[in-house]
Amino acid sequence: MERVHIPAHDMHRTIHVEEPVVASTLPAQESQKVAAVATPLPDTHPAAKLNLDVSQSATEIRRDYLHEYYVLVAPKRKNRPYDTASHDHPMVESADSPRLDLQKSVLEIPPRESGRPWNVKVVENKYPALTLDNPVAYGQQELVIDTPLSNVAFGSLDPGQISTVLQAYRQRSVSIKQNKHIAYVSIFRNDGYEAGASLAHAHSQIIALPIVPPQIVREAEACAHYYEHFQNDPFDAIIDFERSKKVRLIAENVDWIAFCPYASQWQMEAWILPKRTISVLDDCDNAILSSAAELLAPITRALTDTDISYNLIVDQGIHKNQRLTLKVCGRNVVSPWGGLEVGTGMIVNVIPPEAAATWYRQQVL
Amino acid sequence: MERVHIPAHDMHRTIHVEEPVVASTLPAQESQKVAAVATPLPDTHPAAKLNLDVSQSATEIRRDYLHEYYVLVAPKRKNRPYDTASHDHPMVESADSPRLDLQKSVLEIPPRESGRPWNVKVVENKYPALTLDNPVAYGQQELVIDTPLSNVAFGSLDPGQISTVLQAYRQRSVSIKQNKHIAYVSIFRNDGYEAGASLAHAHSQIIALPIVPPQIVREAEACAHYYEHFQNDPFDAIIDFERSKKVRLIAENVDWIAFCPYASQWQMEAWILPKRTISVLDDCDNAILSSAAELLAPITRALTDTDISYNLIVDQGIHKNQRLTLKVCGRNVVSPWGGLEVGTGMIVNVIPPEAAATWYRQQVL
Repeated sequence: MERVHIPAHDMHRTIHVEEPVVASTLPAQESQKVAAVATPLPDTHPAAKLNLDVSQSATEIRRDYLHEYYVLVAPKRKNRPYDTASHDHPMVESADSPRLDLQKSVLEIPPRESGRPWNVKVVENKYPALTLDNPVAYGQQELVIDTPLSNVAFGSLDPGQISTVLQAYRQRSVSIKQNKHIAYVSIFRNDGYEAGASLAHAHSQIIALPIVPPQIVREAEACAHYYEHFQNDPFDAIIDFERSKKVRLIAENVDWIAFCPYASQWQMEAWILPKRTISVLDDCDNAILSSAAELLAPITRALTDTDISYNLIVDQGIHKNQRLTLKVCGRNVVSPWGGLEVGTGMIVNVIPPEAAATWYRQQVL
Repeated sequence: MERVHIPAHDMHRTIHVEEPVVASTLPAQESQKVAAVATPLPDTHPAAKLNLDVSQSATEIRRDYLHEYYVLVAPKRKNRPYDTASHDHPMVESADSPRLDLQKSVLEIPPRESGRPWNVKVVENKYPALTLDNPVAYGQQELVIDTPLSNVAFGSLDPGQISTVLQAYRQRSVSIKQNKHIAYVSIFRNDGYEAGASLAHAHSQIIALPIVPPQIVREAEACAHYYEHFQNDPFDAIIDFERSKKVRLIAENVDWIAFCPYASQWQMEAWILPKRTISVLDDCDNAILSSAAELLAPITRALTDTDISYNLIVDQGIHKNQRLTLKVCGRNVVSPWGGLEVGTGMIVNVIPPEAAATWYRQQVL
């Protein structure tokens, strides 16, 4: 990606942002890692319940595989004192809550015509910010009710039920994109207060936008740039890189691979990637969605069992070399983003992805 | 800014991200605003304590003045139900806490040699993630102790004391930049749990980085681009725009203007901008810092009195057309960012900046 030349101001430092990764074995900076002696977590620490091993973790600045963003992996900062505590994970309530408008159903699986009770139901959002009749906030918002059961978290669902939720995501995504004024369909779950959840019942959200968010455009540009440079799929390169390093792998099956990304922006971040080039849900059949659910179920269960709030993001691409990614992002496991993140976009992650991957492997097995 | 052309994938929508604002009266999209009937906030709502007037607020997607980021201003979403609550604002403790290493003092105002007790003191961070001896996490971290008093929040300090804090920021920033391996100095305060604070005592942080964060580089690029296009300072244009609209203004004095930005990313976000082109703290004398403190003091006091966590960001530029900005960003006043923000970078702000500005005006007067 070309950068506009910024003339250096007399009073300032010359800009020397690192070059994008150009080696075909990304990312180059890992080899420079400096060992550091880690001290154990105090029992009083909010993240102590994770019982992470950070003894092999050094403090370092990492650049993402493809994007120009940087993360400061800072395991030793977990040892600083805290006066503040995190929230409890809320209980989930019954699907017959009066706050869910079950009449405005846009999809039921199995379908209503079958005469069988629904397992997953999609309804219009009762409190939409985006609507099809607002030219300055055009779009659509729907809720996916992940289960008809009360007091059952998404992370407690079996892989079969989670597979049905993924089918609902696909069907609504394909259907909504028929409207040519919709440019991007964002699908996600907010699980727990720290992840932005407002309702307790297990539900996912679908938000159809009239623009492609710049963050997604930049991802597409980075993928196109990588492909042009190396004539190689960037996500094939990422999978090869993580397989060669091993330390951040969680699990894999015939279709998907799960790992914690090298420059994890979010605490306990995990990606579940298809092993072949699939960039949108549209291209997934039921079998491959079942296969994804086999990995997604134990990863979300591990977080729910540990009372950790998280977002599940269904990251669909707009470029053929972007790859559909199921991202699980732990939220404020230690503390919320502070002024450094807000002011500079430079993220401090106090949980190294290698430690997170070790923990997930223990939970998933 | 030029964008790499992304070939449209068969399965996807064509990308039609809005063009950057090219009119000299930015931003163009405001004129398209659609009126909407707003309903009153329920008393049980976490933001009800702000008692905001959103009767004139429409739901709309807004693009930032200069950057390619979008905010969905969604006042009606404040009416949706919440199961989850926000944190209390923690008390502040004494400056003689054993957790502050007062011996490792790098600056005292007034200076130790004067024989008078210090009002503001800067110490090395006891738990640094960045250090000058780590090549992969190179940098420096310092703590500014904003007051020697115990149980006094930053927002309760008088303008004279806040002015002294700003002087400490300037002195350390100038001094740290003598090291040519430091590319950017980030200065901020985390006030309250929701803002990422870990220690209760009123303190600010200084983090010296070996790279200019990409977010700051993009800001600089947008400023350079604007100036090239219009031969006009972008921040002069922003001030003219906000003065002409009036609704987002908070207050001004001879040197500074305070307002809520058009596309506020953060709830209750307020900017305090110098009226003439100053891009770094280095160029501020004590008189102009006093003048800034006259606006910063009542704005932070209003948030503290209402138990709202916030970050104060000292946004220094790297380009001569970037302008030093004191940004006050309310954190999770209603709820934390959810999956839409995490997954797409598209931000929902349920508190319109016009309503925030009205509230600030009432508090500041």
